[in-house]
Amino acid sequence: MTQSLPAELWPDVQPDAARRLMLAGVESFARRGYHATTTRDIASGAGMSPAALYVHFPSKAALLFAISRSGHEQALALVENAINDPALHGEPVPVMRRVTEDFVAWHARRHTVARVVQYELQALPEQEYAVVADLRRRIERAVRDLIERGLRTGVFRVGDARTAARAALSLGVDVARWYSERSGKAPPELGREYGELVLRMLGAEVG
Amino acid sequence: MTQSLPAELWPDVQPDAARRLMLAGVESFARRGYHATTTRDIASGAGMSPAALYVHFPSKAALLFAISRSGHEQALALVENAINDPALHGEPVPVMRRVTEDFVAWHARRHTVARVVQYELQALPEQEYAVVADLRRRIERAVRDLIERGLRTGVFRVGDARTAARAALSLGVDVARWYSERSGKAPPELGREYGELVLRMLGAEVG
Repeated sequence: MTQSLPAELWPDVQPDAARRLMLAGVESFARRGYHATTTRDIASGAGMSPAALYVHFPSKAALLFAISRSGHEQALALVENAINDPALHGEPVPVMRRVTEDFVAWHARRHTVARVVQYELQALPEQEYAVVADLRRRIERAVRDLIERGLRTGVFRVGDARTAARAALSLGVDVARWYSERSGKAPPELGREYGELVLRMLGAEVG
Repeated sequence: MTQSLPAELWPDVQPDAARRLMLAGVESFARRGYHATTTRDIASGAGMSPAALYVHFPSKAALLFAISRSGHEQALALVENAINDPALHGEPVPVMRRVTEDFVAWHARRHTVARVVQYELQALPEQEYAVVADLRRRIERAVRDLIERGLRTGVFRVGDARTAARAALSLGVDVARWYSERSGKAPPELGREYGELVLRMLGAEVG
């Protein structure tokens, strides 16, 4: 069965009308920025009335929050999946390779969603921001812990695990800024190249 | 003599009123996004009338272009300065270290300007975009040439110079996204750490 784009982007969100509004939100925010977008723009992008939008999202901020939280939850899930994958035995080198591959590929494939999520962070209201900030801290901490484990077992060599974790994630996040379908590289291929670069950056013996 | 912030940011721009408008533009664009900012907002941010703004910039787009072009020219200049510094003898390892240190420190110190320059690229009119895109290509080409030279002389080891150049620049650009004065690291210190990380990423023998 072929899934629609909204269903593929947000498999956990129901009903489909809410997902279509999230996609219309992403497209409007990406084009004009959050502040210059009205709920009317978003509703009409989803082929709905403004009143129908409010059935699903009480405000433009609530819609941005749904997009942002979901994006961060997906990113955290892929990091945790790699850490907990029994085939990788929690070993820092293959786990870090998988984290980078998946994180980079996700930011390439979902570059429009990822841009909105990153660039409009400051537009979130305080409480919603706190939820997203907590997800971000969990992603960073998971990667930092992984790097610290690699430092202890001697497979990584870097001065400061915090800076190294930030740099590794930064490489992935920034893919969303410059990536386009015309870039010539498929997301998984780019992920593999970055996996290699990040392991080298961490001082691991590769290739 | 202590310089004002606008004079420090844009030493080549005259008169001071134009620089103050550029700073007010950066602040408004960073806060609300380009599309939601009016020329009235910018003029009032600079303590001027909208009519006074038009004396220096015929449009909001012209102001964004001035900010964007200057930012890219400064980034290109620091790359070329490292390449041409006689003390570094054009050697790929020390040149790449210097490029990274300066590029990262610039993006940390100028993080608000850099964010506007990166995030509002699509808002530039076509001809202005072409000028900025050319500067971006020159920055990327200079770094790619440097990496290719290092590959030929055997001091770097990476699969694809183009991806490696993009990744190295990406690390620097993304600093502007997350950096804040509260991050705890001074720009030059962060630059030195990243210089080390990038050289490792390129497969150079360091430390």
